[in-house]
Amino acid sequence: MSDYFPDFSPRFRKSIEALSGKTVVVIGHARPDGDCIGSQVALTRLLRNQGVEVVCVNADPCPQSLLFIAEESPFDVLNFERIEALPLIFVDCADELRIGPETSKRLAGNEFLLNIDHHISNTNYASTNFVSSSSSATCELLAGMALDLGWEIDALTAEALYTGIMTDTGRFGYVATSSQVFDICSTLVKCGAEPAKISNNLYENNPFSRLKLLERYLNSLKVCFDGKVCYGVLTQKDFAETQSVYEQTEGFVDYARSVVGVEIGIIMEERKTTVKGSLRAENAQMRVDQIAAKLGGGGHACAAGLSSNLSLSELETSLLEEVGKRFDIRKGEIISDVK
Amino acid sequence: MSDYFPDFSPRFRKSIEALSGKTVVVIGHARPDGDCIGSQVALTRLLRNQGVEVVCVNADPCPQSLLFIAEESPFDVLNFERIEALPLIFVDCADELRIGPETSKRLAGNEFLLNIDHHISNTNYASTNFVSSSSSATCELLAGMALDLGWEIDALTAEALYTGIMTDTGRFGYVATSSQVFDICSTLVKCGAEPAKISNNLYENNPFSRLKLLERYLNSLKVCFDGKVCYGVLTQKDFAETQSVYEQTEGFVDYARSVVGVEIGIIMEERKTTVKGSLRAENAQMRVDQIAAKLGGGGHACAAGLSSNLSLSELETSLLEEVGKRFDIRKGEIISDVK
Repeated sequence: MSDYFPDFSPRFRKSIEALSGKTVVVIGHARPDGDCIGSQVALTRLLRNQGVEVVCVNADPCPQSLLFIAEESPFDVLNFERIEALPLIFVDCADELRIGPETSKRLAGNEFLLNIDHHISNTNYASTNFVSSSSSATCELLAGMALDLGWEIDALTAEALYTGIMTDTGRFGYVATSSQVFDICSTLVKCGAEPAKISNNLYENNPFSRLKLLERYLNSLKVCFDGKVCYGVLTQKDFAETQSVYEQTEGFVDYARSVVGVEIGIIMEERKTTVKGSLRAENAQMRVDQIAAKLGGGGHACAAGLSSNLSLSELETSLLEEVGKRFDIRKGEIISDVK
Repeated sequence: MSDYFPDFSPRFRKSIEALSGKTVVVIGHARPDGDCIGSQVALTRLLRNQGVEVVCVNADPCPQSLLFIAEESPFDVLNFERIEALPLIFVDCADELRIGPETSKRLAGNEFLLNIDHHISNTNYASTNFVSSSSSATCELLAGMALDLGWEIDALTAEALYTGIMTDTGRFGYVATSSQVFDICSTLVKCGAEPAKISNNLYENNPFSRLKLLERYLNSLKVCFDGKVCYGVLTQKDFAETQSVYEQTEGFVDYARSVVGVEIGIIMEERKTTVKGSLRAENAQMRVDQIAAKLGGGGHACAAGLSSNLSLSELETSLLEEVGKRFDIRKGEIISDVK
């Protein structure tokens, strides 16, 4: 038996045992990602093995690239009537508002039963909270507790947990990628997770249109603030002409961040009525969440986002102005434009 | 003590112990990659700890992106006078010609002492051969044997071994990514390998020019043979106008291979006097090594390359003709051109 989360696992077992025979909602954040969907799928299957019935809920549908783990699970997008009296188990949500504004309002009266998460900014908003901010992913925490408790992890559960870890570590590239992460993944592979299959589903299934959209994004890239910031934009025209859908921009901002010397990478995407901005930094000191917050967004110190009602060019001006302040550079001054 | 390679490790210990006090050449293949350089660096350090002196040799210089592991090691590019009497330890070389045509000729008289490799096509060309074709990387084999033998693995050695595994598994994405791979990586992290630092060095250090070159490659992509093949080209003009160097195309071909439905991805690069072709497949049945061999190249079933004296457009015609045969499609017939 493993001992990954000695402070949590015994309490977790008690929390789940108390739910036997009941039905709960496992809810993740809006615009769900691999760690969110992976956590929901895995927890659903673990709970059912413990005699707990589950409904999975997200404000937004599961992305195409994650359907391979989600399609067998009881995902239910915003069927409020079915769930308004059920207790909530939050996964991968730093606070209760992450489930989306409308969902949050509608479920405000539900019991906030459990909060299982790895965000450092987690506000411990539920009756019982399992928050491990040193973990790379909520899926690392869930996998570790399940292994500690000797719970059966079948192949699909292992696949879901591995997916969450692989995506939230940026393919084993972020600082939280610890020895324990690899140790847990080794066990998940023994349980039936197939790294090649999962990697193919996540990263090797590009619609041709996505590569054409990436070409547009790369074409738009500019380096400014003395080489410290790289940003690019995608317009409605780009999406239309490449016949791409919005979720295909996943990961694009990492190209901007990956440029030698760049501290903050940015993508701005023109949606139908709003403009979406995403910021990424390698160094947590950049606190891109604070930059995003100035324009109504939020997130992590190294990864943040916002949704704005400004026009694309207005947001470009405002966002670069805020970014510039991070480098103690005079308001709005762009020192060098490479392209 | 671990037991990763019980058939190899005791024999490996004996082979190395017999070299105590001697000097050997640790030689890798031409155009060295992460697993080649990682193996050379790690083996050098392991050998020195066992009292064996080492010269590292490659026909081509270490790529920029791998200098972070190589710069402290005794790499010596083609200083034949120094090494012509020394025994050779080959790493990551399927046969003795992989060290490059000129090097191969000059060192034909040296003793072929050890052959440490993971290629299925390895010809067991040395006096003693350690070939594990089920391993993801030569570095997996080296790490496993060192751990089996309880040899000290310091931080830089761990980093080198991890680099080889990470690159040769395609960031933990290829089929050889086993439970053992993660188990070994967990230990390497304990020994001091820092996944985030390594990942940053390998994948997050893009010269801006590389992204502009990628933009050109994406722009050139065409899908043919009923969606089964995606190929793109880079001309001398592309390299010149983006101010890129040849090694910056590393990984580009994976974009072509990643398109939904594509079985074979191809890149053709116009060099000064030759054209370089690289082929990648997800499925080993594609045997892209056989396709490359038709044009004077070779490699693995899923990853192969060639260097041709044909012009870019001649190679495009010839290579697509050979690729077409793989799909039992009439000679040279391109069924659909998306772009």
